[in-house]
Amino acid sequence: MKKTGLKLSEIDPRGPNDIDRDAIEKEAKADLKRLDALCYRMYAEDRHALLVILQGIDASGKNGTTKHLAQGINPDGLQVYSFKKPSELEIEHDYLWRVHQGTPHRGNVSIFNRSHYEEVIVTKIHPEILSAQHLPESILNDPDIFEKRYRHINDFERMLAENGIVVVKFLLHISKEEQLERLRERLEDPKKQWKFSQDDLEKRKYWDSYMKAFEEMIEATNTPYAPWHVIPADRKWYRNWMIGRILVEQLESLKMEFPTIDNHKVTLEQLSNA
Amino acid sequence: MKKTGLKLSEIDPRGPNDIDRDAIEKEAKADLKRLDALCYRMYAEDRHALLVILQGIDASGKNGTTKHLAQGINPDGLQVYSFKKPSELEIEHDYLWRVHQGTPHRGNVSIFNRSHYEEVIVTKIHPEILSAQHLPESILNDPDIFEKRYRHINDFERMLAENGIVVVKFLLHISKEEQLERLRERLEDPKKQWKFSQDDLEKRKYWDSYMKAFEEMIEATNTPYAPWHVIPADRKWYRNWMIGRILVEQLESLKMEFPTIDNHKVTLEQLSNA
Repeated sequence: MKKTGLKLSEIDPRGPNDIDRDAIEKEAKADLKRLDALCYRMYAEDRHALLVILQGIDASGKNGTTKHLAQGINPDGLQVYSFKKPSELEIEHDYLWRVHQGTPHRGNVSIFNRSHYEEVIVTKIHPEILSAQHLPESILNDPDIFEKRYRHINDFERMLAENGIVVVKFLLHISKEEQLERLRERLEDPKKQWKFSQDDLEKRKYWDSYMKAFEEMIEATNTPYAPWHVIPADRKWYRNWMIGRILVEQLESLKMEFPTIDNHKVTLEQLSNA
Repeated sequence: MKKTGLKLSEIDPRGPNDIDRDAIEKEAKADLKRLDALCYRMYAEDRHALLVILQGIDASGKNGTTKHLAQGINPDGLQVYSFKKPSELEIEHDYLWRVHQGTPHRGNVSIFNRSHYEEVIVTKIHPEILSAQHLPESILNDPDIFEKRYRHINDFERMLAENGIVVVKFLLHISKEEQLERLRERLEDPKKQWKFSQDDLEKRKYWDSYMKAFEEMIEATNTPYAPWHVIPADRKWYRNWMIGRILVEQLESLKMEFPTIDNHKVTLEQLSNA
C-alpha cells in the first residue's frame, strides 16, 4: 500500500488561490450533466455500482455535498445513508454489518454520509463508545484493535471492488475557523438551530485528535481499489467542483457501454407485427 | 494457512467401525444439554455469537443436522437460514451481502443451511450460473476469480471472528451409495417426494466434480479462525454426535461467564424496600 505520510495541516482547506470562481462553477455544472449521463449508462448496464463515502468533522459539508451530487444522479438509482449513532440492533452485529446492507445495487449509487470509518475515528478518540459495543474483553483489550479494523475495512472494500463496486472516499477538509463560522451560522439562523448540538462544542475541543485520527485512517486505508481524496472544503463551490470531477473521471474510466438488442432489425420487424 | 492436502476419498463416510451406537446416542443427548447450557450462557453474556455453516451435497443431511441442533438451542436465540438460489435483489449485490445480513446477533446462534460457499462450489462446476450474476466482464473473465473469492471469504470470516463471532464449518460427507439410498427414499415416500427434484439426478452426474470442489474449498478456506470439519455423515447418529461434540468444545473454550450484578446485596435490600 502506498504510504501517504499525509499532514492535513499542510493542505490548505481553501484550495488554490489563483482560481476563477465563475469558471469553476460553470465547469461543476457541466460535470453534473456528465455524471448524470454516466450514472444513466451504469444503470442501463447493470453491472457496476458506485459507492461514495463522505467523512469529515462536524459542519464540514457532508450534507451539502450530498445535495450537490443528488442534482446529478437520477433519484431512481441513488440511495443516501446517514450513519448516525448505531442502534441496539446494529451494535449486536459486527460494525460492517449495517454498512454492507447499504452498499449499492448494481447500476446504482450509494452515498454514505459518515460510514464505517467512524469506527476508527470517534471510537479511537472516545474509547467509552467502543466499550459500550458489547465486544468480548479479549477484543476490547487488544492493543491492535484499530490495526485490525483498518485491515477489515480494506478487505471489505477490496471485496466490493472485486465484485464490480467502485468505491471512492472523500475527506472534507475544513479549517477550524471555517467550522466556527458554520457553527455560529447554525446558532444564529432559526432554520438551522436544529442542526446544532452541544456535542459539537464538546467535539471541537478534540479538533487535533480528529485531525490525527483522519491522518492515521487515510495512511492505513488509502488503497488502489478504494482511494481517499482530501478535499479542500472551506469554499463550497470548490469542494463541489472537485468531488464532481473525481467521480466523472472514475466512472469514465470504466468505459461502460449501453447494452444492445441482438438482431435488433429482426426485433424491430417483430415489433411492427406485434 | 495450514494446507490440508485433503482427499475426501480417503475419509470413510461411515466413520469408525468399532463404535457403540447406544453409547454414542447417549453421549449425543448429554452434549445437547451441554450445548443448551452453553448457548444460554452466551445469550446472557451477550458478547459472543456462534455461526454454524453446513455444506454438503444433496441429501447429505443438512436439514437433519439443523433439526438435531435445534433441540439443543433455545429458539429465542437461534436463527436458521436456508440459502437457496439467490433472488434478483441478492444478485444485484456482492455475493456476501445476503449472508452477512444473516450473521448472528451477539448472544445468538445462526445456522446456515448452505452458504456463501455455494459461490465457490456450484458456480465453479456450472459456470453458466456465474455468468448470470451480472458481473462486469473483467471480473467474469478473471482466471483468478475463485482464488479471489476464497480470499474474500477468509477475510470476511476473520472479520467476524475478530468481532466475537465464532465460525464453525461442517462438510457433511456421504457416500454416493448413501445418496442413492436417500434419494430413492424421497421418491418412495409420499411425504418426502416434495424434496425430490430432477435437478438432484442431474447434479449426481457431477459427483466427482463436487468432491473436487469441496476439496479445493477446504484447502483454501480452512483457517484457524474458521476451521472446516469433515463429518462422516452416512450414519446420522454418528454425524449428530460429532457435530454436537465439536460445538460444545468450541463454546466451552470461550470460558464465558454469567454477568453478575454489582453490589448485589445492596440491590437485594433495595428490592425488599421497593
